[in-house]
Amino acid sequence: MDRFTLKPIGIIHTPYKTTEDCPKGDYHNKGVKAYIELQPEFKDGLMDLDGFSHLILIWVFHESEGYELIASPPHDEEQHGVFATRSPKRPNPIGLTVVKLTRIEGTTLYIEDPDMIDGTPLLDIKPYLLPPETLGEVKRGWLDKKK
Amino acid sequence: MDRFTLKPIGIIHTPYKTTEDCPKGDYHNKGVKAYIELQPEFKDGLMDLDGFSHLILIWVFHESEGYELIASPPHDEEQHGVFATRSPKRPNPIGLTVVKLTRIEGTTLYIEDPDMIDGTPLLDIKPYLLPPETLGEVKRGWLDKKK
Repeated sequence: MDRFTLKPIGIIHTPYKTTEDCPKGDYHNKGVKAYIELQPEFKDGLMDLDGFSHLILIWVFHESEGYELIASPPHDEEQHGVFATRSPKRPNPIGLTVVKLTRIEGTTLYIEDPDMIDGTPLLDIKPYLLPPETLGEVKRGWLDKKK
Repeated sequence: MDRFTLKPIGIIHTPYKTTEDCPKGDYHNKGVKAYIELQPEFKDGLMDLDGFSHLILIWVFHESEGYELIASPPHDEEQHGVFATRSPKRPNPIGLTVVKLTRIEGTTLYIEDPDMIDGTPLLDIKPYLLPPETLGEVKRGWLDKKK
């Protein structure tokens, strides 16, 4: 099967210096501040992004080596298939996090509730579209204006 | 910056033969059936995945060439930055879809509500953890059992 080569569009800066520091599981440390430095060449791609309250970040577990099909999540005594977990040791080491967007200045995006380590390479930013109760109020920028 | 090479873990089969056929926007064609053929080598990674009602699929817009920082979404007269849209012409052509999981047989995952074309390369499967109202009841497999 074909292989795909991807290049980071920016770097995520967080207070977490090691994997052990990062919050685990399906929650986030509410209010923890972080920021993204987008590569300047992609600046125009941010147009209208500031209307969204939450973003989906797709990033690389760049310090993860190899993978394990059976994962042992922290704080759980049982093992589970890697695709049923958020383990970093995945066949493709892709991470996904929903973060709160607080503001954008130039190519710096200020965010809250990260769960990746400082210096994480960012592959993509998507607007968060589904309105889950757990996030509180969700704004959907230009999409809400259409309705 | 470093580049990352990723290899598909499987192929997504859907009724959509062309990009034009695919549902657009932030909704899904409810009930449309599709399936994933996972590479046999990753079978063990599926353990306990059947307890989740919804999956996050991360995949490749493999027919997309190049990118455009300013996107023109279908059914919208205005333009927006690519990161504020789900345009396939992204700096890294990564797609993300939440689908319903109906059953798993061996390495075949039967799903509903796809929005990608038939033959799409799959990069990762993650359990869907947030319980948005719009999806109806959400089961979270082994995670719910812990609580």
